[in-house]
Amino acid sequence: MQTTTVTYRYQRSASGLTVGAHLFGFLAIILMLVWLLHYRGGLDYDSDNSDRVFNVHPFLMFFGFIFFAGEAMMAYKTVLSAHKVQKYVHAMFHLIALCSGIFGICAVFKYHDMNNIGDMNSLHSWIGLSTFILYCLQWVLGFATFLFPRASERTAIRIVPWHMSGGRALLYLSICAALTGLTQKSTFLGVEHMLSHRELNLINFTGLSILLFGIFVDLSVALARYV
Amino acid sequence: MQTTTVTYRYQRSASGLTVGAHLFGFLAIILMLVWLLHYRGGLDYDSDNSDRVFNVHPFLMFFGFIFFAGEAMMAYKTVLSAHKVQKYVHAMFHLIALCSGIFGICAVFKYHDMNNIGDMNSLHSWIGLSTFILYCLQWVLGFATFLFPRASERTAIRIVPWHMSGGRALLYLSICAALTGLTQKSTFLGVEHMLSHRELNLINFTGLSILLFGIFVDLSVALARYV
Repeated sequence: MQTTTVTYRYQRSASGLTVGAHLFGFLAIILMLVWLLHYRGGLDYDSDNSDRVFNVHPFLMFFGFIFFAGEAMMAYKTVLSAHKVQKYVHAMFHLIALCSGIFGICAVFKYHDMNNIGDMNSLHSWIGLSTFILYCLQWVLGFATFLFPRASERTAIRIVPWHMSGGRALLYLSICAALTGLTQKSTFLGVEHMLSHRELNLINFTGLSILLFGIFVDLSVALARYV
Repeated sequence: MQTTTVTYRYQRSASGLTVGAHLFGFLAIILMLVWLLHYRGGLDYDSDNSDRVFNVHPFLMFFGFIFFAGEAMMAYKTVLSAHKVQKYVHAMFHLIALCSGIFGICAVFKYHDMNNIGDMNSLHSWIGLSTFILYCLQWVLGFATFLFPRASERTAIRIVPWHMSGGRALLYLSICAALTGLTQKSTFLGVEHMLSHRELNLINFTGLSILLFGIFVDLSVALARYV
């Protein structure tokens, strides 16, 4: 009887955590769109205006990459269906994240080319690209172990904790990449006197929402075993 | 028999993870000291040179705060003693981290005062101070639950997963604070043409080492339950 009570309480909290994750995820998307559309001239991958090309990068890296990766991680809690269906949704969302990440990274390389800026100099770029490469490896390993050609049950069970812990570490890595990216942009604009106090606050709130999205996704996965 | 094999393998890996954490932790301390002493004029809280006052901040926030907090988290694996001793070491290391954090934060406020710079404007400061406040709360709650006045066994068992997941989230938050801080400093110095390519690489490698320290600490805690 005692066990049931404890389980029920965690279940309620864990649902609260996924709701919180969605709340901060959508908040971050809205704040970022307000920032890019109202303050930074909009987004367009094929534009001649390099700033509009650049703006595709933060948007796709959050909405396309981090947000979908987070949704994929929460799929085992949010998709109310058979385990097999949850697994396919998990893999599919991660694939969407992966493809968006490729386009998002291409956008910033294109921006650098258009302005003759060197690539891969900042801490943000080092963290970002390493994270993305490790993420791709994790996806391929996950696919090969759990979907096709599929490892034996024994191996799969052994790999699960590493797959989960690695995935959670990668989520935080991508959050670190996002926050260093926002900091780099806001510091640059600030020193060049191209940033109002209002825009700085908007960027900071966007960063905080991204961070809280990451924390809520992580806690909902971390505490899932108590559900 | 099967269970024993699996347990043994995880045990080996988990020890490897704490070794990795120490490796990257010490590497980050060394790189940061080279950066601050060789490129940035050294550290001194009572100096008239505001840059030397500032330099106390990154050093204490990593070596004092993050490193000791990480050591505290790994105490249950690294301190080969009774559980009670491990618990005291855990609380003590966190207390050292907490005190260092206070001095580290004071240093940057003093630097701002000396240069008439406004406080709490950047994303780094928002993340950093929120993290530190939450960290203090977590310490007080942990102390009251597990040490004195101590909650009942039933309550303590219920709180453990939240304490652990919260602690791991706080570790990543503090890593995010450190990386946004380094990014802010290097971007500022870069735009002001006060940064050589060599120093930028040194800052980036320091940041990567801090990040890897965080990941290894987190994984060693996350996978500890399989040991």
